[in-house]
Amino acid sequence: MAASDTISVLFSLPTSSILNTSTVIAINVFVTLLCACIVVGHLLEENRWANESITALLLGLVSGVVVLLLSNGQSSRILVFSEELFFIYLLPPIIFNAGFQVKKKQFFKNFSIILLFGVFGTIISFCLISLGAFLLFRRIGVKSLTLQDYLAVGAILSATDSVCTLQVLNQEETPFLYSVVFGEGVVNDATSIVLFNAVQSIDFSNIDTWTALKLLGTFLYLFFTSTILGIAMGLLSAYGIKTLYFGRHSTDREVAIMMLMAYLSYMLAELLSLSGILTVFFCGLVMSHYTWHNVTESSRITTKHAFATISFIAEIFIFLYVGMDALDIDKWKESSASAGTSVGISATLFALVLIGRAAFVFPLANISNCINRRDSDKIEFGQQFIIWWAGLMRGAVTIALSYNQFSASGGKESHERALMITSTMIVVVFSTVVFGSVTKPLIQAVQLRHVKSMTSDAADFASLEDLRLLFLENGEQSDNGNDQPAPKRSSFRLMMRYPTSTVHYFWRKFDDKFMRPVFGGRGFVPFVPSSPTGAADET
Amino acid sequence: MAASDTISVLFSLPTSSILNTSTVIAINVFVTLLCACIVVGHLLEENRWANESITALLLGLVSGVVVLLLSNGQSSRILVFSEELFFIYLLPPIIFNAGFQVKKKQFFKNFSIILLFGVFGTIISFCLISLGAFLLFRRIGVKSLTLQDYLAVGAILSATDSVCTLQVLNQEETPFLYSVVFGEGVVNDATSIVLFNAVQSIDFSNIDTWTALKLLGTFLYLFFTSTILGIAMGLLSAYGIKTLYFGRHSTDREVAIMMLMAYLSYMLAELLSLSGILTVFFCGLVMSHYTWHNVTESSRITTKHAFATISFIAEIFIFLYVGMDALDIDKWKESSASAGTSVGISATLFALVLIGRAAFVFPLANISNCINRRDSDKIEFGQQFIIWWAGLMRGAVTIALSYNQFSASGGKESHERALMITSTMIVVVFSTVVFGSVTKPLIQAVQLRHVKSMTSDAADFASLEDLRLLFLENGEQSDNGNDQPAPKRSSFRLMMRYPTSTVHYFWRKFDDKFMRPVFGGRGFVPFVPSSPTGAADET
Repeated sequence: MAASDTISVLFSLPTSSILNTSTVIAINVFVTLLCACIVVGHLLEENRWANESITALLLGLVSGVVVLLLSNGQSSRILVFSEELFFIYLLPPIIFNAGFQVKKKQFFKNFSIILLFGVFGTIISFCLISLGAFLLFRRIGVKSLTLQDYLAVGAILSATDSVCTLQVLNQEETPFLYSVVFGEGVVNDATSIVLFNAVQSIDFSNIDTWTALKLLGTFLYLFFTSTILGIAMGLLSAYGIKTLYFGRHSTDREVAIMMLMAYLSYMLAELLSLSGILTVFFCGLVMSHYTWHNVTESSRITTKHAFATISFIAEIFIFLYVGMDALDIDKWKESSASAGTSVGISATLFALVLIGRAAFVFPLANISNCINRRDSDKIEFGQQFIIWWAGLMRGAVTIALSYNQFSASGGKESHERALMITSTMIVVVFSTVVFGSVTKPLIQAVQLRHVKSMTSDAADFASLEDLRLLFLENGEQSDNGNDQPAPKRSSFRLMMRYPTSTVHYFWRKFDDKFMRPVFGGRGFVPFVPSSPTGAADET
Repeated sequence: MAASDTISVLFSLPTSSILNTSTVIAINVFVTLLCACIVVGHLLEENRWANESITALLLGLVSGVVVLLLSNGQSSRILVFSEELFFIYLLPPIIFNAGFQVKKKQFFKNFSIILLFGVFGTIISFCLISLGAFLLFRRIGVKSLTLQDYLAVGAILSATDSVCTLQVLNQEETPFLYSVVFGEGVVNDATSIVLFNAVQSIDFSNIDTWTALKLLGTFLYLFFTSTILGIAMGLLSAYGIKTLYFGRHSTDREVAIMMLMAYLSYMLAELLSLSGILTVFFCGLVMSHYTWHNVTESSRITTKHAFATISFIAEIFIFLYVGMDALDIDKWKESSASAGTSVGISATLFALVLIGRAAFVFPLANISNCINRRDSDKIEFGQQFIIWWAGLMRGAVTIALSYNQFSASGGKESHERALMITSTMIVVVFSTVVFGSVTKPLIQAVQLRHVKSMTSDAADFASLEDLRLLFLENGEQSDNGNDQPAPKRSSFRLMMRYPTSTVHYFWRKFDDKFMRPVFGGRGFVPFVPSSPTGAADET
């Protein structure tokens, strides 16, 4: 700036007057910090306590302090936290990439437990946190909150942070934990947003028995339509790319249409007031199963890495943003609470989060263990502990919802509403830094990765192989002219004994016979120059 | 929407209240239109009259009409044209990608002619258009414009559209024309923005002989500092990636850091009030020469295609945007000009653009021909014609500058200022559609691609081969113990006869000895698993 100012004065001509300077400065600061996070994250790769999220959060905090000092305590924010920026630009690529890169077999194998945790778990957590806040806040001194506010607090703090989960759990090392905790996070997101919207719109003076049923109806509608929309968009992209064969002329068109269709699925869901996160997740899942195999080799490599990179940048950006925003000096001033009250509220919220999650993880896991008779499918106590622990982090969704509920300034109660925002901030920063840094070493300490995940995988593959052999034997028997009802009875028995594997087996048969011939997929495209797995495995 | 409304009414719960509906609708419309443009562009690939730009422009116009009808003539715009969106998000990836993918040898071979056209050509065009507008507009009936406005019109309409050039000229088929017209576009951009800013800030009541000198000083400062900043950022990225070796841990970090550094170079230039376009172009050039060779194989494929795809989407987006914006009904109403005046102003502006460009292309090309004694370096008349023709398109830069100058509403003269904006729109749409669709067939008609480009390339390679042999012979002679001064005299003679090739030869020697060992580059990285050219040639 100095050099340019001198020159401008020298020539008495400003050289550029088109862009807004404060925007330009903000972008420069953010891009520089993003680069710094990546470099630091790379240098600390071997360090098991740190990762890019925590680096970004801390760097964000530090830059917030610097801006605060430079502006003489007037402002700590270069960019104001915007829900639009977060929900329109940053969240979709992260969730899409998660669906695109998730191990589909693991995910569907654990689908029932994911739904159990994501739906019932979130509701249990919501009830407990709301109740706890209602009972405890009055004693600390917060009195102006309404019943609606308490329920909103429950919904806000039940939203786990699926982004941070991706960073602390490793899909390769602990596939079971990753798929359960991350899958739960995706379903949890839909549930908590439904709860939050419901809380904001319910007329509390007129609650009847229908209200709960209405909520359930809305949730089911939201869950199914969002999922179907995501699958439909994924299949449309697969069919379109297979039929039109863009790769004939240009690789760029293929990549562009994949990006745009994925984004369109999210925005369409938002337009229809569905859960964009669920939609874009399933769109990513379908795209990786069909569409990805229909494009040229270089498009496959490009999409795989480009989606991962965009998601990676968005993740770091969010943590930087949260870090900088935690020092929202206006809210701190407005809350004008004593340090005691502030710490009290934050500690209460944090304790409620811990209890709320414990109250559903351990019981539901044990219920699931009782239903599953096979030992390899049971969730050990160590795993239950990690599931509880890894889902304690709260992130940008929590902050976005908290601003949405409490940011309306003015009025006599405005300092308590500001206090709720600052307390939520403290919970988010504390949980991310503490749980984010401790989870990796904790997993190593519990020694889960060597003992459980490998045996679990081995057992899984063995059973599938057994199953295939059994089916083959049955098929051969029927071919040899034996009694016809035998294979049917046998499939039914197998279905009872290995429900997930059997569903998977029939899905594969259906997929190969009806889906792949229409929508493409591995081995079902006219132009297969080389193995896609080669490219897929070479991360 | 209908289904969701019904459901919302049914359950009496709105399901999402976080995002702004109009933003969501706008994004949905744009993403859908982008997909449509890509599909149509793919289907019309073999059609030589159409391309994605024209499709996008026409689709934008059609959707503008649809919106206009739906809103009962109240509004034609879903998104308001924003200079920030254009200069901060859309333009940088396009220009960076152009620098990244440009054929460097061709570009530097034609560097002198590019500078000649880009600097002096733009100034000539600026003077002629300003003078013409000054003399002719009064006769049509536009009387309220000031001297400053006339000069601004000259600067605005001297800005050629480098984006559209990329679409109508093919780097493989006509490398000479591509590098001259596109290179001129990049330099022209810097020149016209300098001229525009100068016009906006000069005190016209107090013009003295220093003004011209000051302008020249500003231009030179801008040109050199922007270029140096771009080169420095490119080299920094190459050195950083080579030293830290990100690929050891993660491909995504490499790709992310390349993207962020490229973007940072642009934003840093804007922060320092330099020409971001020049900076990011040279950053792309340096990155493709050094940085690209320092990353892993999959990062190379990813960056190559991801940059091209992002640039591709941004280009289509701009044309869609311009198409929709051309029906800016408020400006049309405000201008309240008769159809005659409107057509008169547009036709005058268009004629001035034609004359202004002819006035420098043909004279400067002939001057260059007189200086170049080798026949293969001369620019034939057919080529001159194509250079003139392909640079006539006006695009988003013109619209952005026009809004910047004339959009201030209110006051008695406001209808004439609005008229200037609508007339500029007409020139942009007309020139893009007409010249965009006719250029490809025209080039085929002039039969340039088969006759000239191949002979030119062949001549180029032959002379370089000769040169290398000559240098080698000289080297051997001096090794044999002959007279020392001979090779020096000989190099000097060669330098005079083949200036560009000699510069290139010495640059290669310098590059191999000093630059590549530090910054990496082809063959100078520790880990070369396979040939990068294989990946590079396989578009």
